[in-house]
Amino acid sequence: MILCDIGNSTVDIYENGVPCKVVLSEFRPKSLNGDVWYVSVNHSLSERLESLQNWHNCATLIDWDKYYPTMGIDRIMVCEAIDDGVVVDAGSAITVDVMKEGVYRGGFISLGIRSAQEAYARLSPALSMSFNFEVDLTIMAKNTPDALTVGFLAPLVHKIESLGKPIYLTGGDAQILARYFSDAIVDEVLVFKGMQKLINKGTQC
Amino acid sequence: MILCDIGNSTVDIYENGVPCKVVLSEFRPKSLNGDVWYVSVNHSLSERLESLQNWHNCATLIDWDKYYPTMGIDRIMVCEAIDDGVVVDAGSAITVDVMKEGVYRGGFISLGIRSAQEAYARLSPALSMSFNFEVDLTIMAKNTPDALTVGFLAPLVHKIESLGKPIYLTGGDAQILARYFSDAIVDEVLVFKGMQKLINKGTQC
Repeated sequence: MILCDIGNSTVDIYENGVPCKVVLSEFRPKSLNGDVWYVSVNHSLSERLESLQNWHNCATLIDWDKYYPTMGIDRIMVCEAIDDGVVVDAGSAITVDVMKEGVYRGGFISLGIRSAQEAYARLSPALSMSFNFEVDLTIMAKNTPDALTVGFLAPLVHKIESLGKPIYLTGGDAQILARYFSDAIVDEVLVFKGMQKLINKGTQC
Repeated sequence: MILCDIGNSTVDIYENGVPCKVVLSEFRPKSLNGDVWYVSVNHSLSERLESLQNWHNCATLIDWDKYYPTMGIDRIMVCEAIDDGVVVDAGSAITVDVMKEGVYRGGFISLGIRSAQEAYARLSPALSMSFNFEVDLTIMAKNTPDALTVGFLAPLVHKIESLGKPIYLTGGDAQILARYFSDAIVDEVLVFKGMQKLINKGTQC
C-alpha cells in the first residue's frame, strides 16, 4: 500500500516505510500502481483522483464527530497517530493539538516560524532579521534578534509545555523546535502513521 | 511643560494631564509655546526640532547602559515609568519588558494583534478571519476563529503572567488585553509618566 499526503505545491509519498517528496507539477497519479490511500488539501487534484479506482481518500474514514468541520485533514491525521499527548505540526503554520485516551481535546494554530519572521519584517525594517535559534528562551532578551526570537518562541514553547506529555513534533520545522523541548519525540512521518492507523481501523470494520 | 511622543504617522501630546493625538501632517511644532520635551521615532522631524530652542529630546536623558542600543525609545520610556513589574505596550507590535528595583531585566517583542491576524490571513484564505476576543484562553479550541485567537493570545498571556506582578498594560490594544489579566493596571499615558520621571531626574542632577 502507498500513502500520499497531497499539498498545494508538493506531494509526500510513503511506501514501505520510506518517505519521498515530489513537486506537484511533476506528480503523475496514474504512475502509482496498487492501492493508494491519500489525504489532500488540493481540491482540483482530489476531484481527478476520484475517477481512479486504486486511489482511496482517507477523509472518508474520519469520524468527524471527534473533530470540527473546518479542521485541516493533515491535522486530523497527526492526531489520529497518537492516543495521548500533544502533537505539534510545525510547518507554514504551527498547529498544536491535544489527545486524551484517543479523544480530541482541541488545539490551537500559531504562525509558522517563517511567517512570523516575515510579519515582524513587515512591521518595521528595524525588525527585519532572522531569529537567533541559539537563544535561551527562559531569559528575557537584551538585543533585537533575541527579543523577536524570545517574543515568538518563548510564549509558544511555554504554553505547549503546560499542556502535558508526551509532546510529538512533526512538520518541516520539527527539528528547530526540538531544541527547546528536553524530551519531545520528533516523528517526521506522523501524518502517515495516523493515516495507516485510520486505514487499519476502517478496513477492520 | 508639554510632552510629545512623535511617531511615524501621529503625534501624541500631553499637557496638564490631558493627552491628545494629532496627525503628523497637521502637526506644527512652532505652534507649541513653552518648554516641550519629546521622544521621536521620526528622524527627519527630530532633525528639524533640534533647531527649536524650546524643544528638548528625552533621548539625551537616558542612561543607555541600562538598556540596549537598538531598543525603541517609547519602550524605554514605559520602562522608566515603573520600578518593579512587567510593562506590556500593545501597539503595532507588543513589547513586554521586565523591571526590578528600577533595573531593566530585558524583554521581548511579539507581533501586534492586527499584524498577527494579517499574517494568518496571508497563510491561507481559510485562516483569514477576525479573532474571537470572547474566547476562554484556558480551553483548547474546536473551531477556526478560536484556534487562531487561542494560538496567538494564550501563549502570550500565559508567558506574561509567568513574569511576575504587577502587570502594566499600555498602547492602543491595552483594553483588549486587559480582559485576559485579572489584576493588570491599564495606563494609557505610561509613556508620558516615564518621560516626566526621567525629566524630573535629569533636571534635578
